Amino acid sequence: MTYRPLDETTIVDYIAHRPSLAGVFSDFSRLSISEVGDGNLNLVFIIENTANLAESVVLKQALPFLRVAGESWPLTRERMRYETQALVKYNDLAPGLVPLVYDFDNEMSLVVMEHLKRHEIMRKSLVARMRFPKFVDHITTFLVNALFYTSDLYLTGPEKKLLEAKFVNEQLRKLQEDFVYTNPYMASPENKWNPLVDDAVRAVRANAGLKMAIAEMKQAYMTHAEALIHADLHTGSIMLNADDTRVIDPEFAFFGPMAYDIGAVLQNLVLNYLSHFGHTPAREERERYQTYLLDMVRSIWEEFARKFDAVWAANNRGELVPQPYWDFPGGAEAFADYRRRYLQRLLQEVAGHGGTKFLRRMMGIVSVWDFTSIQDLEKRAVAERLAIRIGARWVLERSAVTSIEDLIGIVREEVAGVTV
Amino acid sequence: MTYRPLDETTIVDYIAHRPSLAGVFSDFSRLSISEVGDGNLNLVFIIENTANLAESVVLKQALPFLRVAGESWPLTRERMRYETQALVKYNDLAPGLVPLVYDFDNEMSLVVMEHLKRHEIMRKSLVARMRFPKFVDHITTFLVNALFYTSDLYLTGPEKKLLEAKFVNEQLRKLQEDFVYTNPYMASPENKWNPLVDDAVRAVRANAGLKMAIAEMKQAYMTHAEALIHADLHTGSIMLNADDTRVIDPEFAFFGPMAYDIGAVLQNLVLNYLSHFGHTPAREERERYQTYLLDMVRSIWEEFARKFDAVWAANNRGELVPQPYWDFPGGAEAFADYRRRYLQRLLQEVAGHGGTKFLRRMMGIVSVWDFTSIQDLEKRAVAERLAIRIGARWVLERSAVTSIEDLIGIVREEVAGVTV
Repeated sequence: MTYRPLDETTIVDYIAHRPSLAGVFSDFSRLSISEVGDGNLNLVFIIENTANLAESVVLKQALPFLRVAGESWPLTRERMRYETQALVKYNDLAPGLVPLVYDFDNEMSLVVMEHLKRHEIMRKSLVARMRFPKFVDHITTFLVNALFYTSDLYLTGPEKKLLEAKFVNEQLRKLQEDFVYTNPYMASPENKWNPLVDDAVRAVRANAGLKMAIAEMKQAYMTHAEALIHADLHTGSIMLNADDTRVIDPEFAFFGPMAYDIGAVLQNLVLNYLSHFGHTPAREERERYQTYLLDMVRSIWEEFARKFDAVWAANNRGELVPQPYWDFPGGAEAFADYRRRYLQRLLQEVAGHGGTKFLRRMMGIVSVWDFTSIQDLEKRAVAERLAIRIGARWVLERSAVTSIEDLIGIVREEVAGVTV
Repeated sequence: MTYRPLDETTIVDYIAHRPSLAGVFSDFSRLSISEVGDGNLNLVFIIENTANLAESVVLKQALPFLRVAGESWPLTRERMRYETQALVKYNDLAPGLVPLVYDFDNEMSLVVMEHLKRHEIMRKSLVARMRFPKFVDHITTFLVNALFYTSDLYLTGPEKKLLEAKFVNEQLRKLQEDFVYTNPYMASPENKWNPLVDDAVRAVRANAGLKMAIAEMKQAYMTHAEALIHADLHTGSIMLNADDTRVIDPEFAFFGPMAYDIGAVLQNLVLNYLSHFGHTPAREERERYQTYLLDMVRSIWEEFARKFDAVWAANNRGELVPQPYWDFPGGAEAFADYRRRYLQRLLQEVAGHGGTKFLRRMMGIVSVWDFTSIQDLEKRAVAERLAIRIGARWVLERSAVTSIEDLIGIVREEVAGVTV
């Protein structure tokens, strides 16, 4: 079937003819269709059987251009293949932590997947100061399984290279290279920032040491093919409720640095922390929630490191350091030491990539709703200045980081003087 | 045409039917054929027109197994495609520094290329204490052009990813991962070493700090996709004479760390330096040539760095740090500083990868002729112990390296006590 964008009128006929969806809907005559896409790249439809609301799916179709920028920014529809490949892989490696995939049509650049009805986008829930007691366990399991099992720590050399070859994804990678690591720090027409922090934005763009450090993180981002990373794992790519967590939207997936995904999660939690200087005026209530968020940052890193180390020690079948390599007196301790050094390097890179991502959100093409939903620009500027200072310090001080407390300490030091 | 290994009797008929070779030979009736392969992976034929010796070519055909290990070690013939792709790319980027390619037959896994009649394998010439006044200029031009123009410093993001996708090369990469970074440092049946240095070999295999450091270099080798590297650029992969230098045999080519190729050249020159403790008993003669070799090591790094920096400054069209990124007061100096930091990181990685390659040659599957041609095992052991100590120090001290003098200094310190 030749590619054509679907709409509310053509979609029922389309799905009624897909054999793989025959098991999902008992009746195609009473489907309701709504387009709900608020992303930048795709059409997103929710399709429900109004006779039985338990029967519903999400259909996501790629448009042949970057939606946020209009038709002038062409992007191949290949990205839907990357998203589906990643979702299928994640379903295999981290079942229950991503939506189920029911159907994929490469010609039409569309995927049909589980409709997460009882889940909220995490970013919005955090602004509402909700708590998710199972999130630390869920997201660390997702990160460990997705990263470890696609890396040289678990795969043989050829297995990893052949999997990597399926995720070339050169166009969406360029978007992140431009919009995370480059354009925000120079004159570029799509950049947006709060005029009240104009001085801080200009200072970043003229800070030679910081620019060199960001360029070093970009070099690592572009070349360090460690594992299959989601590459856009902010709190808008996580849907959850009290019991369940799902990672969505992996269309940027490619083989990159593990620390980019971990850093995205931690840095988005700190951004949300900062946003409460605008959202939550009652000091005690704010500080209680902010403490909750920083505790979550600590727990995520510690749980990630603990699980990653345990999974590695128990499943060291990969190419990197096979078991016989450690077969000498003291070898078991050396392997444990090597794993500790590996995780410490990861944490330093979390600081570098996560720090850069603070900055891009303050002065690039896409801000975060946690901040843009603060109506009062003065209040928003308080949070934004903090984000810029914390981001710059995470990047610049990354090589001295030895513990997650160092990153939390930078947050605490920077917010210490805030009086709102 | 279905794959079949050629031999002296079938080869004439084969080449007489290749249109692209019609321009090479004026007469197919008087060809002489000789098989000269001394490599481990391929058949190599020299084909000459005995009526006009100026007409001659080399035909290289992949065997479907690793020749040195016999038919028990299967390897796909895909590697001939990788070698040819790399040769064609090198002819484009560094013309005159690789053999010309006349023909490629993917079905038959063979390539027909320029016959380098007036060139010698560099390794042998160095053992004979020959001097090559143009080599520093030639090899640094090769390295700069091959590495810079296939990196993110010159290519756009998509250009680089699409080129990288042509060099998956998962099987030959595994050979280097195993034989350079893993098997030599543990029990593995193919390892060979001089029994007189058994204690030093055992000490390496039980040295926890060194093993962790080698594993870190392996991690970088496996994941840092910086540029198209040759990945086997020892002095046996270089043919030269007083006027001309050619890099051959790039079948291991893939997107890896630039420092691996640079380190291979420098480390092989130091290995040759050490071999003269066995080959050249006359002290004055030996020291004169050893000084020549260490001067060459220094000049290669310095010339490489100078040319690389100049080419980058003049051709900064790549994805990594586009010109407008440096458009701020002091930006030109910051870009220059960034390039200096980039090159210093490269030099530290030269120490790490080069250091590892010293060790693998002393205790792995493939030694070097510089050493194996020393008949007296006692004399050979003197050079081998030095190579092991120098290699270990290059690896372990890499993070403190700021200048090529640091690497040369380690060589000088280790040889200071030698009395032969």
